[in-house]
This record gives sequence, structure tokens and C-alpha cells, in this order.
Amino acid sequence: MQGQNYSLTQIPERPSKPRQSGLTMVMDKGLSVREIEDLLSVAGNYIDIVKLGWATSYVVQNLQEKLDVYKAAGIPTYFGGTLFEAFLVRNQVDEYQKVLDKYGMEYAEISDGSLELDHEEKCKLIERFSKQVTVLSEVGSKDAEKIIAPYQWIQLMQDELSAGAWKVIGEARESGNVGLFRSTGEVRSGLVQEILTKIPAEKIIWEAPKKTQQVYFIKLIGANVNLGNIAPNELIPLETIRLGLRGDTFDFFLNGK
Amino acid sequence: MQGQNYSLTQIPERPSKPRQSGLTMVMDKGLSVREIEDLLSVAGNYIDIVKLGWATSYVVQNLQEKLDVYKAAGIPTYFGGTLFEAFLVRNQVDEYQKVLDKYGMEYAEISDGSLELDHEEKCKLIERFSKQVTVLSEVGSKDAEKIIAPYQWIQLMQDELSAGAWKVIGEARESGNVGLFRSTGEVRSGLVQEILTKIPAEKIIWEAPKKTQQVYFIKLIGANVNLGNIAPNELIPLETIRLGLRGDTFDFFLNGK
Amino acid sequence: MQGQNYSLTQIPERPSKPRQSGLTMVMDKGLSVREIEDLLSVAGNYIDIVKLGWATSYVVQNLQEKLDVYKAAGIPTYFGGTLFEAFLVRNQVDEYQKVLDKYGMEYAEISDGSLELDHEEKCKLIERFSKQVTVLSEVGSKDAEKIIAPYQWIQLMQDELSAGAWKVIGEARESGNVGLFRSTGEVRSGLVQEILTKIPAEKIIWEAPKKTQQVYFIKLIGANVNLGNIAPNELIPLETIRLGLRGDTFDFFLNGK
Repeated sequence: MQGQNYSLTQIPERPSKPRQSGLTMVMDKGLSVREIEDLLSVAGNYIDIVKLGWATSYVVQNLQEKLDVYKAAGIPTYFGGTLFEAFLVRNQVDEYQKVLDKYGMEYAEISDGSLELDHEEKCKLIERFSKQVTVLSEVGSKDAEKIIAPYQWIQLMQDELSAGAWKVIGEARESGNVGLFRSTGEVRSGLVQEILTKIPAEKIIWEAPKKTQQVYFIKLIGANVNLGNIAPNELIPLETIRLGLRGDTFDFFLNGK
Repeated sequence: MQGQNYSLTQIPERPSKPRQSGLTMVMDKGLSVREIEDLLSVAGNYIDIVKLGWATSYVVQNLQEKLDVYKAAGIPTYFGGTLFEAFLVRNQVDEYQKVLDKYGMEYAEISDGSLELDHEEKCKLIERFSKQVTVLSEVGSKDAEKIIAPYQWIQLMQDELSAGAWKVIGEARESGNVGLFRSTGEVRSGLVQEILTKIPAEKIIWEAPKKTQQVYFIKLIGANVNLGNIAPNELIPLETIRLGLRGDTFDFFLNGK
Repeated sequence: MQGQNYSLTQIPERPSKPRQSGLTMVMDKGLSVREIEDLLSVAGNYIDIVKLGWATSYVVQNLQEKLDVYKAAGIPTYFGGTLFEAFLVRNQVDEYQKVLDKYGMEYAEISDGSLELDHEEKCKLIERFSKQVTVLSEVGSKDAEKIIAPYQWIQLMQDELSAGAWKVIGEARESGNVGLFRSTGEVRSGLVQEILTKIPAEKIIWEAPKKTQQVYFIKLIGANVNLGNIAPNELIPLETIRLGLRGDTFDFFLNGK
């Protein structure tokens, strides 16, 4: 699958769905059923997985219907990690597992972005949830002042993958200004490059809501980097950046430049 | 009403509609009928009142239909204050009252954000319009250079409430960078806190289009602060912030922190 | 046509469609058919021409349907210049002409924002394409570091109009921070004013995605300046700015101020 509508040479190869790399994770923070149908009609081929951002699933009035629409389209969904943390901090982890069950969720995110969680305990929770669902685990704090050193990021990621996580997610929030990024949104590129010396790129989903961040990862890792927290109306733009068809990467895939 | 979909402990109480506090005022700057229906299907319970931003009602091609959809859903609407001012500056106040009548408006905003208006005159207009509709009056200029001292804000607000305003609105524009806020979007917190020593919080709607501004008011006044100029796609996010279910207020409602 | 819904005096005159000045060019970067229908229901009278941004037409899954909807509404469309450049850089210009033909395109953009193109060669391409379609040509680089002097802008524009371009476009990107604008988004006003000494305003479409940029051009040139790269949800706001019905231009059309 390389775009739809006419022929161009020298376009990077993109695997078809279901993909193991080149994933795009979309952030849904309150779409209606019709908006989801619209998105599928325009860009369904480019959506690998959808996150119902943080605890938005608690308040949206169309939860079951929206899950049904994604399911019918063969697109996996999961609730944002903050929801897991909201149950955890209230000592309601069992209840959370029942919620996942009630809604037939096949994926879940385990994270500690908004609370303190002993890492051994986190890995046990990853292991526990892995028996019920496919786990995405997230590394990095939502607190802009909490800086984790690169060697620690690597250790955390390795341990979480060993504990059973399918992919690890690099934190950025919806706004792209924490975790992997400085408060200005600039990539902590030393951190990213050091992580990549130890963790295979296809095991990581980089949250990269801003265009400059997407361009950075595509230039560093290639068209088929896994990217997350993509706003619905940025899906088509992102796909053009992956293919070298927007100004930002126009030269990049031509003649090896 | 405290979210919809599953049980969590320690969630702040939110009154059901119709509410007198904890109001959310949404800014509609040109939604289609279908977009309004979509919004209602996702977040109708969280919308207390809708402002058709500034004079957008003059140019939208679906005015009557959109008013009908809101009315059928039991959601009050009003035209932004700039429209009132556009009629006032043209000496067409009588005509404005006829427009309100023609569209069956039950609310109106009286403001002086874009023109100079003697305050006694403004209060007379509030009194006059109060006989026809429920009045929201707005304090604060759209001019970033026009700074009003806190004691003056208080006096203006008290006078306008005495003149018959149902609520007073603290100005911020769609962009959140004037009136209550510095040009950077930062809250003028000394101003806000001084206002609150004299005016009951439930009488004020704080325009707070940016997330940091919403978080500020929720932490200062509580989950049930009245907030306005909320973009349609930020309604669900705002409701999670009110409930302590987003990173920004995650700790806030737990254990009194 | 001067708004729709009620009478206000001292509103600047706006010509009806089809217009030769006062054009609004909308940027569609992946709208669904329903979203386009929604836009038409709210603001169809204010849309003169639609650009399918850069090469988004390559990847959207609803290309033919969306072109059909615009066509049925009598709204011309064209593919962004980056698509032309993507074919050019691959030596596939003949194929691009066939693509235009296949989709029944009546307009095309010829640009050199992402590549180096000898200007004589560019003008020959404008001449060549003018035999097939109505050509919009774009001046200015997407590279923020490539500054073109005012006298050069003027020469480039004159030559491209002479070569057959219907209008010339001043580059800004979706983000409004290159070409006509500094990296901060601020207008290069000396450049704009110098251009206007030599090129008739109605021959230029100014890309102006940000509100401050729109306000600048409306104050400089008037309500009926041609503006481009307008986001769909900014169409109604822009029309109010053109009419002096938003705070930013509230005074501007009153009493010649």
C-alpha cells in the first residue's frame, strides 16, 4: 500500500495492515461515531491503533457505539494510561480489569506518568494484564520537571518488554512537551538516539503530536517508524510526510538524501 | 451526573443540568447542524450554554437551523457581545432587539470589549435588555493594552449584576490572551483572586480557552467553576480535568491534595 | 452578498461569486465528503476555490468523491504545488498532465517551493500547463532560510503572470512562517508593500493562515483582498474580519478609520 490514486516513482515502501512497523496510533479525545466513520473513509488504511485519550472514555456519552465502529473496521483500540492510573491510585485494579472485560478490550496501556509506581510493581502489573490483553507500556512522566536519564529509559523499556509489553511508548502527552521532548517541544535527540542503540525501533511507539517531531523521527528512523498521539486531522498530513510528499521530507527519500 | 460509563471512587460531585454552577459555555464559531448533533451525542450533558462567537451569526448560512437544533436539545444559546456592539456603534440598538426577537433568543450578551461605552449607559442597557432576555454582561477589553485595575473590575461587575445581569463574564477572547490574561496567555492571578473576595464565584463565567487556564481556575475554585469560550473539541477534555481524570488535576481531588 | 441574516449599516461591499477579487482559497488537507457538505452548508458562499493541500490527493481514500462534491457545488479545486514538484523532480511531468486530465482538473498550481527550478524553465511550464488548465503560480520558498529580495519577488511575479498564470500566490505554508512571513509568523510588510507598487492586488492570492496575517492584509488592501490557505473552520471567522465584525477590524470600516 503506497498511496492510492496515481503513480509516482521513488516512494518509500509502506507495509500493508496489519503492520508490525510503520504503525500510526491515533489519539481520539472525544470523536463522534460520524467523525470516526468520516476518518475511516479518508484515512482508514493509515490507522493502526486508536487510543481513547487518558480517561476520556469515562465521560464520553457514546463509548460503546464508538468502540463498535472501530471494531467493525478492524481497528484495535485502548484506553489511555491515565485511566489505568486512576484505577490504580484508588486501589481499584481488579475493577479496571472488569471494565476492560465489559467493553471487550483487547489492548491496554500500563503507565506511571501521573503517579509514583515502584518499577518492579509496574512490571508485575504488565505481566498480570498481559494474561488478559495485549499490553502497551509507557515510559516517561507527564511532569515536565521529572527528567529520566537515558540509561534509565533503556532499563525501564527493557524490563517492561521482558515483563510482556507488546510495545513500549515514549511519553509526550497530547501537547508534545514532556518526556521525549523539552518544554518547547524540541526533541531530546541524545536521549532518542541512545535508546535506539539498545531497543529495536519496531518495539517503540514514539508519541509525536507535532509536525517537527514527526519529521525528526521519520528522518532518523525512516518512513516506517511507529508514531503515536497523532490528531485525527493530522493523519493524512503524516502519511504524506512518511512518503516524502510534503516539503519537510521532500528531498529525503530521493537519491538517498 | 459524574461521568457515564463505569465506577471510580473519589470523583468530585458535579450537579446535573440545569446547573447554576459548574457551567460550561461552549464557543460555536461556525458549526454545521451535523457537527452540533455530533457534539450532543458525545458531550451534550456537559454543555450548559452556547455562544455563537462574536458576529458569526451574521454570516453563517445555517443560522435558523442551528438555533433549532440547540433548542430541541434544551441548550440555551446567545450571540457574542461583539454583535451587540456592532449594532450599538451603528445606533441600531432597537434593531438588535428585533433581531433577538425574530430568532427567539432567550439570552443576550452586553459587552464593551471593542468600543468605549460609558458605564452608566452600559448598565442602563443591561437593565433594558433584562426585560427581554436573560443578560450575560462581559467585563474586560479585547484591547491587550487596556488594563483595568482589580478594584475597577470588581466595581464594574457589581454594578452590572445590580443592573440585572444573570452572570458576568471575564473577557479572554477565543485566543485567551487579553482581559483576564497576559498576552502570553498567563492568568492575571492577583486580579482573579481579588475579584473573588467580593463577587460570588457562581456569578462569574471565566473565559478560559486554553488548558492551562482551565486548570488554573479548577484548582482555584473547584470542579464546579463556570468556564467559557470552550472549543467544541475541548469539551470532553475539560470534563476530565474537572473530574481529576487528566494528568493536570490527577492528584488534585485525591485526599484533599 | 453581505452576510445573510439581518441588516447592519456600514458593512463593506463584497462581490458575489464568481468573484475576481475578495477571493478566499481554502486549504483541504483531508476532509471527508460529509465534512465538505457541512462546510458548504455553513459557508459555501465564502469559498471561491479549494486547494487539496500539497500531495494529500495522493493518499486520501476519497479523492474522486471529494472532487465530485466540490464540482457539484460549483467550487473549483486544484492540487497543491508540492504535488506538481513531486512529479517534476521525478521527470514525470507528462504523467502529471495525465493525472490532471484523469480527474478533470480545471486548475493547477505551478510552484518551486521545495526544489530548485530555473525561472525560465518555470515560466515555460506555466505556459505549457496554461494550455490545459487555469494556472496559479506560486512565488516563495518553503525553506525559511531562503530569503528573496522584494525586487526579485516582483520580477518573478511579473514573469509568471506574463507566462500565463491567472493569479500568483505568495507562499506561507499551512503554518504561516515562511515566504511572506518571518519564522515567527510576522508579516514581512516592507516586502508586501513593495510588491503592491508593481503588481495589481487582484492578481495576487496571499497565503495567510493566521488571524493576525489576515487582519494585516485586510487593513492594508481592504475587505476584498484575496487570501489563501484558510483552514475550513476559519472561513466564517475570516468573513467576519472582512466585514469589520470581529474585534480586530471592528473600527476599521467605520467612518473611514
